[in-house]
Amino acid sequence: MTGGPDLTVVDAASAPAADAARVDADAVVDQLVDRAARASRVWGATSAAGRATALRLVADALDDSAGSLISIAMRETNLLEGRLKGELARTTFQLRFFADELEAGQLSQATIDHADVNWPMGAPRPDLRRHLVAVGPALVFAASNFPFAFSVAGGDTASALAAGCPVIVKAHSGHVELSVATAAVVTTALRAVGAPEGTFALVTGTENGRRALLHPALKAASFTGSIAGGRALFDLAASREEPIPFFGELGSVNPVFVTRAAADTRATEIAAGFLAAVAGSSGQLCTKPGVLVVPAGSPLLAELQEIQQLETHRLLNARIESGFERSLEWLHGNPKLTTLAHADGTPAGARGLSLYSTDANTFLEHAAELAEEHFGPAAVVVTYNDEVDQVRILREFAGQLTVSVFGEEADTAIESVRELVQLAQEKAGRVLWNQWSTGVSVTYAQQHGGPYPATTAPATTSVGAAAVFRFLRPVAYQGFPEALLPDGLKEANPLGIPRRVDGAVGVTR
Amino acid sequence: MTGGPDLTVVDAASAPAADAARVDADAVVDQLVDRAARASRVWGATSAAGRATALRLVADALDDSAGSLISIAMRETNLLEGRLKGELARTTFQLRFFADELEAGQLSQATIDHADVNWPMGAPRPDLRRHLVAVGPALVFAASNFPFAFSVAGGDTASALAAGCPVIVKAHSGHVELSVATAAVVTTALRAVGAPEGTFALVTGTENGRRALLHPALKAASFTGSIAGGRALFDLAASREEPIPFFGELGSVNPVFVTRAAADTRATEIAAGFLAAVAGSSGQLCTKPGVLVVPAGSPLLAELQEIQQLETHRLLNARIESGFERSLEWLHGNPKLTTLAHADGTPAGARGLSLYSTDANTFLEHAAELAEEHFGPAAVVVTYNDEVDQVRILREFAGQLTVSVFGEEADTAIESVRELVQLAQEKAGRVLWNQWSTGVSVTYAQQHGGPYPATTAPATTSVGAAAVFRFLRPVAYQGFPEALLPDGLKEANPLGIPRRVDGAVGVTR
Repeated sequence: MTGGPDLTVVDAASAPAADAARVDADAVVDQLVDRAARASRVWGATSAAGRATALRLVADALDDSAGSLISIAMRETNLLEGRLKGELARTTFQLRFFADELEAGQLSQATIDHADVNWPMGAPRPDLRRHLVAVGPALVFAASNFPFAFSVAGGDTASALAAGCPVIVKAHSGHVELSVATAAVVTTALRAVGAPEGTFALVTGTENGRRALLHPALKAASFTGSIAGGRALFDLAASREEPIPFFGELGSVNPVFVTRAAADTRATEIAAGFLAAVAGSSGQLCTKPGVLVVPAGSPLLAELQEIQQLETHRLLNARIESGFERSLEWLHGNPKLTTLAHADGTPAGARGLSLYSTDANTFLEHAAELAEEHFGPAAVVVTYNDEVDQVRILREFAGQLTVSVFGEEADTAIESVRELVQLAQEKAGRVLWNQWSTGVSVTYAQQHGGPYPATTAPATTSVGAAAVFRFLRPVAYQGFPEALLPDGLKEANPLGIPRRVDGAVGVTR
Repeated sequence: MTGGPDLTVVDAASAPAADAARVDADAVVDQLVDRAARASRVWGATSAAGRATALRLVADALDDSAGSLISIAMRETNLLEGRLKGELARTTFQLRFFADELEAGQLSQATIDHADVNWPMGAPRPDLRRHLVAVGPALVFAASNFPFAFSVAGGDTASALAAGCPVIVKAHSGHVELSVATAAVVTTALRAVGAPEGTFALVTGTENGRRALLHPALKAASFTGSIAGGRALFDLAASREEPIPFFGELGSVNPVFVTRAAADTRATEIAAGFLAAVAGSSGQLCTKPGVLVVPAGSPLLAELQEIQQLETHRLLNARIESGFERSLEWLHGNPKLTTLAHADGTPAGARGLSLYSTDANTFLEHAAELAEEHFGPAAVVVTYNDEVDQVRILREFAGQLTVSVFGEEADTAIESVRELVQLAQEKAGRVLWNQWSTGVSVTYAQQHGGPYPATTAPATTSVGAAAVFRFLRPVAYQGFPEALLPDGLKEANPLGIPRRVDGAVGVTR
């Protein structure tokens, strides 16, 4: 790892849409995407083992630079050191996790059908072999609230690189210095491992992001952010002469339902867990529980007022702060809501937790406005008298990343609880029982996604092993000679990967 | 199977967009989608074994009705009896194939991660279990050219029903009587097996299709047809308040490249195969080879003129006939093309084969117009002098369903051939070696799809085992008690399906 990175950062923050600087910036963005398209053939054809090595080198380089990256991140985002350290560890784990999946042959879904003249379809079956290949250059719109895990070297970048796609990251304006520093680490590592120039690039500025999204050579885009911003970009991606997939994670309220039995048995524990989940990272998580549905008259309500000791910290940046200011004004002034508890922020400059409450009937009448997401440490508590109201309340929600239910063993046999769980599965990508939604483990079975507006692509996930599949597409080879087949599909299985052969799963011969 | 089908056919062919009949039709379409949404919870929760039984019963019922269905199809589509018999056999095979996949547990992708306090991410891993669930009501726009296999009970319907999605078919105007008859068979069979009312419905008329596509309860749509029609519907699907996936198969030229060695060795065989592929079904296949690229001066060119004996038949309908008329006029009058061969149609009313030729340089200069699809028995032959021109020619093509290469053993070591194959894989979903693209086997490794405009969703296929995944989305269950888990994810694996457990693949314990 000698030599400085050859990193092109296009910064058009100061270039309005129509001036000369904009024209220059357009040309540079176009060059970056063209370069990514050229790199695509080489990076996409790099062996899984080669890509795994690259991902591990990037992870090692990030770990090596942890001290300086975290100190920049603390300064730019106000997030606390412990949280950022954990987030970086998660980020490098993710890169290594995908490297393991690549080496295990889990990402190519190799499937082989030998020719069969007696194939019962009524016509002979030719020799057909199918696997997944990289879709081509991908554009990653970084998020504000996870400066590592959902930013420059985060899950989307790791997924796309693992798939064999060159990546152009549109940096989030909230942590540009960190983005440039992270991109330098990534670029140096990729260069050290021999990845082609153009495998990775960074741009800043809204106009540069739009420009890259509309470039004909771009083949996919991902995004984590607001509903308004994500929808605008989704519409752009769909409007292209060649529409491309847009994997947007937009917004989620993550409602939590507490059965009467659970509220009776575990009021203190559930209240404490909820408060910690809302206050964590000062409420700036896409999986923050924004609505808690509890039985009226439960001791839980009193427990929820114990919020003065909860630690929060300054919000990510001035834009998010003013957005949260507007949220609080709206919540505070809303006649359908009562202030349940409000804490002044400590330390200075931090926003304290704010909880508002309403009853089931009011919520059901005004669900369109009361089931909105508020980014920051605030949440709405809804009280119900009739257990079945929980189902009615959940029905009012649009697509969600998560829905959580807190219940007792005996509840699992109650029809309304079973219906609540069934409905939760229709509304969300992840359903939790007696757990909080804020942790999102990087593992094989994770599903971080959900019906719109949680995401624009409910069949996909942005966390976990399956995240890589967003950047792959299948190709079948018919009647191919061994010499022209990709290694993963050769008869002799030189890579020793598990394949589906004539319908039988997991064949490694 | 007693009792008549309860089949609602909405026929708005005679209802203009603004009149009273249109208002009535809108209400009926809305009711059908609402009914499908209600059916969705029951059908989606029906066990894989139950859905398999239903698919088999539909297949059996279609076979039982083969005689009458085929005679209606012959009358409505002009397709020949042998072809239609084969197509129906393929259609019922497909239903049974998906039934087998359901019973083998191949469609749920069950993945289990047990809780692990030492999970190396840096935070304990909760118990997470993920599988695929039905997306909800699906709308299938039937194709004109496969009145069975890509129509009412075709691959899209079979895929969606297998996934657990209720289906509304928008009948193709080219075979409405057959569509109604097929829908009656499907409805009766589904009712006999106890599928809920609303699991299947049929509508006719463009406006009814649009209305259903825009209904908020609809969750996915599929389409096989023209680029213009498919793009308009794709745009509608993307414009919804909740955008939904639109799996459109639009258009493909399926170019075929013949190396000099192959042309020298197998001129007669290749010419005969090409002519048969262009003439089959009177050229009305999405996989018809529309461009053949051959060495200049090859004996193949003379062989291609032997087309008088090729049998064709009348085109599908008047609309397609007039479209093909326009194609012929354009091809015939184009100064960049020479008529290579033209056959009068036999029998009467049939269109004979028409072949046009040009050279590589002319093609490269005017690729935008010369690489267009012509639906019917016509094709363009391009001659090259330099072997490398094949790569240059392929570069000019947009996304394709298929690209085929005819070569000799020795060609597999030639750089330009290897580059041609590599480029073919970038352009298409299926690449063939010494085989014709027109047959599309229903099997595990099939990929019938490709980059836009071949399809609007290149990561998916409309034929083969993976076609079902278009209508599924993942859900993860975190910390769930056994009593609330779906059977496929219970610890004891009561369904005995293969699952990924803690990273290990194919575990059936």
